[in-house]
Amino acid sequence: MSAFATPIIPAPIPDNISLTELIDKYFTAYNSARLREICQLLSQRVFQPEVTVGLSLSGAMTPTGLGISALAPLVRAGFVDYIISTGANLYHDIHYALGMDLYAAHPFVDDVQLRKESKIRIYDIIFGYDVLLETDAFLRQVLRSETFQRRMGTAEFHYHLGRYVRELEVQRGQPHSCLLATAYECGVPIYTSSPGDSSIGMNVAAIALEGSKLIIDPAIDVNETAAIAYFAREAAEGNGKSAALIIGGGSPKNFLLQTQPQIHEVLGLEERGHDYFIQITDARPDTGGLSGAVPSEAVSWGKVDPQGLRDTVVCYTDSTIALPILTAYCLNRCRPRPLKRLYDRRGEMVERLQQLYLQAQLQHKVKDLPTEAPVATYPCGTPIRRG
Amino acid sequence: MSAFATPIIPAPIPDNISLTELIDKYFTAYNSARLREICQLLSQRVFQPEVTVGLSLSGAMTPTGLGISALAPLVRAGFVDYIISTGANLYHDIHYALGMDLYAAHPFVDDVQLRKESKIRIYDIIFGYDVLLETDAFLRQVLRSETFQRRMGTAEFHYHLGRYVRELEVQRGQPHSCLLATAYECGVPIYTSSPGDSSIGMNVAAIALEGSKLIIDPAIDVNETAAIAYFAREAAEGNGKSAALIIGGGSPKNFLLQTQPQIHEVLGLEERGHDYFIQITDARPDTGGLSGAVPSEAVSWGKVDPQGLRDTVVCYTDSTIALPILTAYCLNRCRPRPLKRLYDRRGEMVERLQQLYLQAQLQHKVKDLPTEAPVATYPCGTPIRRG
Amino acid sequence: MSAFATPIIPAPIPDNISLTELIDKYFTAYNSARLREICQLLSQRVFQPEVTVGLSLSGAMTPTGLGISALAPLVRAGFVDYIISTGANLYHDIHYALGMDLYAAHPFVDDVQLRKESKIRIYDIIFGYDVLLETDAFLRQVLRSETFQRRMGTAEFHYHLGRYVRELEVQRGQPHSCLLATAYECGVPIYTSSPGDSSIGMNVAAIALEGSKLIIDPAIDVNETAAIAYFAREAAEGNGKSAALIIGGGSPKNFLLQTQPQIHEVLGLEERGHDYFIQITDARPDTGGLSGAVPSEAVSWGKVDPQGLRDTVVCYTDSTIALPILTAYCLNRCRPRPLKRLYDRRGEMVERLQQLYLQAQLQHKVKDLPTEAPVATYPCGTPIRRG
Amino acid sequence: MSAFATPIIPAPIPDNISLTELIDKYFTAYNSARLREICQLLSQRVFQPEVTVGLSLSGAMTPTGLGISALAPLVRAGFVDYIISTGANLYHDIHYALGMDLYAAHPFVDDVQLRKESKIRIYDIIFGYDVLLETDAFLRQVLRSETFQRRMGTAEFHYHLGRYVRELEVQRGQPHSCLLATAYECGVPIYTSSPGDSSIGMNVAAIALEGSKLIIDPAIDVNETAAIAYFAREAAEGNGKSAALIIGGGSPKNFLLQTQPQIHEVLGLEERGHDYFIQITDARPDTGGLSGAVPSEAVSWGKVDPQGLRDTVVCYTDSTIALPILTAYCLNRCRPRPLKRLYDRRGEMVERLQQLYLQAQLQHKVKDLPTEAPVATYPCGTPIRRG
Repeated sequence: MSAFATPIIPAPIPDNISLTELIDKYFTAYNSARLREICQLLSQRVFQPEVTVGLSLSGAMTPTGLGISALAPLVRAGFVDYIISTGANLYHDIHYALGMDLYAAHPFVDDVQLRKESKIRIYDIIFGYDVLLETDAFLRQVLRSETFQRRMGTAEFHYHLGRYVRELEVQRGQPHSCLLATAYECGVPIYTSSPGDSSIGMNVAAIALEGSKLIIDPAIDVNETAAIAYFAREAAEGNGKSAALIIGGGSPKNFLLQTQPQIHEVLGLEERGHDYFIQITDARPDTGGLSGAVPSEAVSWGKVDPQGLRDTVVCYTDSTIALPILTAYCLNRCRPRPLKRLYDRRGEMVERLQQLYLQAQLQHKVKDLPTEAPVATYPCGTPIRRG
Repeated sequence: MSAFATPIIPAPIPDNISLTELIDKYFTAYNSARLREICQLLSQRVFQPEVTVGLSLSGAMTPTGLGISALAPLVRAGFVDYIISTGANLYHDIHYALGMDLYAAHPFVDDVQLRKESKIRIYDIIFGYDVLLETDAFLRQVLRSETFQRRMGTAEFHYHLGRYVRELEVQRGQPHSCLLATAYECGVPIYTSSPGDSSIGMNVAAIALEGSKLIIDPAIDVNETAAIAYFAREAAEGNGKSAALIIGGGSPKNFLLQTQPQIHEVLGLEERGHDYFIQITDARPDTGGLSGAVPSEAVSWGKVDPQGLRDTVVCYTDSTIALPILTAYCLNRCRPRPLKRLYDRRGEMVERLQQLYLQAQLQHKVKDLPTEAPVATYPCGTPIRRG
Repeated sequence: MSAFATPIIPAPIPDNISLTELIDKYFTAYNSARLREICQLLSQRVFQPEVTVGLSLSGAMTPTGLGISALAPLVRAGFVDYIISTGANLYHDIHYALGMDLYAAHPFVDDVQLRKESKIRIYDIIFGYDVLLETDAFLRQVLRSETFQRRMGTAEFHYHLGRYVRELEVQRGQPHSCLLATAYECGVPIYTSSPGDSSIGMNVAAIALEGSKLIIDPAIDVNETAAIAYFAREAAEGNGKSAALIIGGGSPKNFLLQTQPQIHEVLGLEERGHDYFIQITDARPDTGGLSGAVPSEAVSWGKVDPQGLRDTVVCYTDSTIALPILTAYCLNRCRPRPLKRLYDRRGEMVERLQQLYLQAQLQHKVKDLPTEAPVATYPCGTPIRRG
Repeated sequence: MSAFATPIIPAPIPDNISLTELIDKYFTAYNSARLREICQLLSQRVFQPEVTVGLSLSGAMTPTGLGISALAPLVRAGFVDYIISTGANLYHDIHYALGMDLYAAHPFVDDVQLRKESKIRIYDIIFGYDVLLETDAFLRQVLRSETFQRRMGTAEFHYHLGRYVRELEVQRGQPHSCLLATAYECGVPIYTSSPGDSSIGMNVAAIALEGSKLIIDPAIDVNETAAIAYFAREAAEGNGKSAALIIGGGSPKNFLLQTQPQIHEVLGLEERGHDYFIQITDARPDTGGLSGAVPSEAVSWGKVDPQGLRDTVVCYTDSTIALPILTAYCLNRCRPRPLKRLYDRRGEMVERLQQLYLQAQLQHKVKDLPTEAPVATYPCGTPIRRG
């Protein structure tokens, strides 16, 4: 039997088994084995000092409370260095910071009735319409402040927002910090790939109608995240590694993965792709969505290092099951890492990336200069192929 | 907020959290909430003395070792009273009893190469072709014995097979009993809805070519399981309840659920459907399979008691994740139940069901007798409708 | 670009495009490409005279009317040589033959209300409880007849049942024959892998309580289908091929595929696996069900010829979409094949298979005889390995 | 039987059946019925003059050629009034306009080998790395032009880009226009919810490093799309309707749906939600993603008009199957609509929305003024609840 294979030696599950032992010994095959591999890969190799860990977040994670219960602890333990999230996850996170009530219900409810009662449903979570209205009012008030009257990327935007939220948590005596406030405190930059797409973006747009000077510039995010991924290699004296931990899929997944093509395809710098690719999703590869695209496909794009394919795992299960499990496992098995505070180093890293790009561009320009003009070219000067 | 709703009050997951606490407090929404509801419903209400619990089993559970690690302990604790399984789960269970080696590998292997090396793959489990050959040889040897030279249902068939397997386990000093042997010892009847469909059925067919007198009669199974479901009501002085615990879906699920229509639709006896319907599956309701049919649909068929819809839960996740979790949870939270040993009571229960059926038939015949012959009838005497 | 690749040259879909052209030209990628490959593979290579085609059927196909609209035409055109079906598909098929009314509704209905109104729901199809009762009454009347008072396999059982149903169709002036009656007329044997699992099996069980002598013997089915698969090679002067066309998954899929291991693993005869493996399903490989097991995995089991992996296609979509499309495509593109009438040749083929088995067994026995007795053996004589 | 139910009257599929007849008569249940309902709803009610149709687009549609073959024809026929797309769909669309070669292959390829050969894979589509490089070079050249040296929303951005692409198509004698160029010509605004997330955004970011003055401002998009949705009611003398046609899910789906809460929740204007909600997806509601959130849930948010729940359909199938089918069906059944050219009216509509917002804000401010200061408030003035 080949080297990769381990004999399965089943024994009855004891009645007082610990979580870590249950996973290590009884998650033997199919998606349970993938979840075990994720727990072990994260705790043994990814959550190590030399690895820069990017987390992408989609699906309704914070409404379920996992922002406070699972994600904030991972951030605080230094396991997550930067985050790409949907706007919705950051928006609903704020409800808890504001002390609002969300309720666990079930998915079989009469939505027409809910609408009549001014209640909002996120699958099996229900809360009042006023939760939205008050959060919106809070947001608009904050966004009208001087801090936000200029152009910025989403990392800076969420940092300032996190500061306000944190102040409020302190003021309210909130015992547990939400994700946004925790990331602010830990210097973990949070990006969103779709700044207009969520109630946060909606309120930004509303105050723009009032004359606000706030402009969210997505290009800043693209360059900051590319810089983070690029300079991940510099850690540990050039032996640094880069990990993509993908909860769900969607636009945040793509944004996290595109950091690598941004470096080699667009900026023309050498890069070999993320070293670790770990995803929890229910999206399959065959139906056209990037959410379901597998690590090996990402290899062809240079998003994932071909050498690292053995360090890629996709587990097909609900994130609400996998996320608390992997959090509990890793917190138990893994000692905290020092915080990298990448937020503080964004500016310097982008500056260095810019210099490298301008240098690379100069070299390419010289090299690419056509010795004689082709008959027909694209605007970019490339000769038009017969096709 | 309505009565069914519980506020979500998230707190950071502690690093030494127990499994049961993780589930109770952090599985708040989506499929994690369904898995929590299953754990709580099973431990608080289903695994109680007055409930007769039928388990249906599909998907490759025993190859992963969960036959020995999860299912056998549930049986031994008295939590499972009868089982409907695919043949494959019972066949692959035997490998472990025979001390054979199965290996945990991964799903991305070269199957053409495996075929050349005489290796068999079940997704991410790999083992030698000889595991099949030896298990087959064992089966044929046993099935040629006098015990098996007659017509029987699958409960009896698996009981005798379990006895042989148990003997072998003892002889080999096997520390942990497989599902088949455990069920034999605990008097838990195991049925299969598709007796020809698996290597067990294949070997039965092979020895039939040699002249074996063994005949597996599916009608015996239909009546025995209907009798079990029917007389489940008799427990606790007429307050007995019936539960369907469905791992996967497929033919075993249907077979377990059809016990109820067998009683009212076919046998003409009064019946109100299962009281509990708990399923772990990845099959959705909209694509045509019974695997994905939801509890409420089963209500329309009289398979599930309309009163009991609140006692139905479907969790969409991999059984290899859910089964060890719910096993560990319930073994921890729930005291063992006395064994019902339904195997020993099959004959008597079918006899009583037969009497009730023959009585009911007599009543219906009298009542249904047409006063005058209709112009055109089906063979059954029903007037042909215009349609 | 490698040989397997075709350039995609998109052009606007014209407003009067035919179905076949839409598929050939516009189903370019993802599951649409798989569906196109299935249409083309079936019409160009599988539905050819030298190929023996086995169809497995699961999911609620006949309730939707696809038994009459799609499957019966495929049978009549000679494209399907034998069938493995769930019992439910054959049972619900009969409703249409009896002229009963089933209604297309939608899936969002109140099942408790339906139950009160004595209505049955199959996802978005609704019909009266009396449809079940009358079909059951018809079945029991027929099954009590002399024809059915003995032991038989399901091919013979469904053949006789088909004859009764066909008679009734003629009597009622039914314009279109159902699947059961069509298969009867065309000599296409229909097997079910789970004879007790459906209302047909339930009625067989009921009359057993009355003293019926009907016994459905699954071993007969196993041997008949193995014989069909084995002798498929004999067509076209030894160049015959074997195809598995799998609608859905479940027990029928496994039963169709196990014909090959039955030949080499259990009966000890040489066999190379099915040549074509075509499946339409929504089941994924990673969650433990055989429904989702992919063709390459089947290669490791010897269920599919390794040489034929290029002739395997799995399309992940709803069968209710794919089946009418592939039927319309193939009826349009493919001339009918002469009927093989395998039903009439079952007996002879099993007899020959039996002889081959007994011969093979004799050879193996001699060969396997141990020169000296091992210290410890299984009952079958195999030395017990250290494990 | 209730009013919504239609009897199923199956007849054999004829061998020369047209596509529209196949759908109308043979797509009777499960997802085929949903696809039929979508075809019929679109052609009979949605693609009518009084309805404003928003299309959201995710999943790899344009790489498959469906941009040119299906989406551009729908745009040209006036059936689509505005579009929310992933950046990737707009980026890969350009390859075809530039005359580059993409190949239909299959998904089972060696990605490490592809990487070595500088080939890129999108599931079963393969093309050279130079396709990316040349498209990027084209983009950067265009984006450096004076036209793009300022702040703008994505509708304007894609409009100008579409103009350049169209010029190139003309120059190259391209027979069929891509989606971007077609939308430009038809005045259909194309938005992207994640402007930085795709190779387009990556190139925008790259030239920002060179000092480009181009800034994509997401807030402009939020307000433009909200204005489009709001003023959809004004058509047909106040009887105008709003439709959401959702291909896939993801961020574009949310962005299209959030137009409604933007109006009532954030801007404080009266709004009742979209009238039609049509989605093709493989995402399920239970696993946490917005992709799978169902229309009824959207009702609770005020995204969908409660009155219109009967006009919502979700079909779970691959978009690559459903999109060509619904396109062919609607082009055949539906006469073209006059182009609304919403692109030209964006500015005026946002201006009017702004005025309404400022008025509403004024009214709310007066109304909300607290008569006396509460003990503790959020920054927005809302009293802090005990929680």
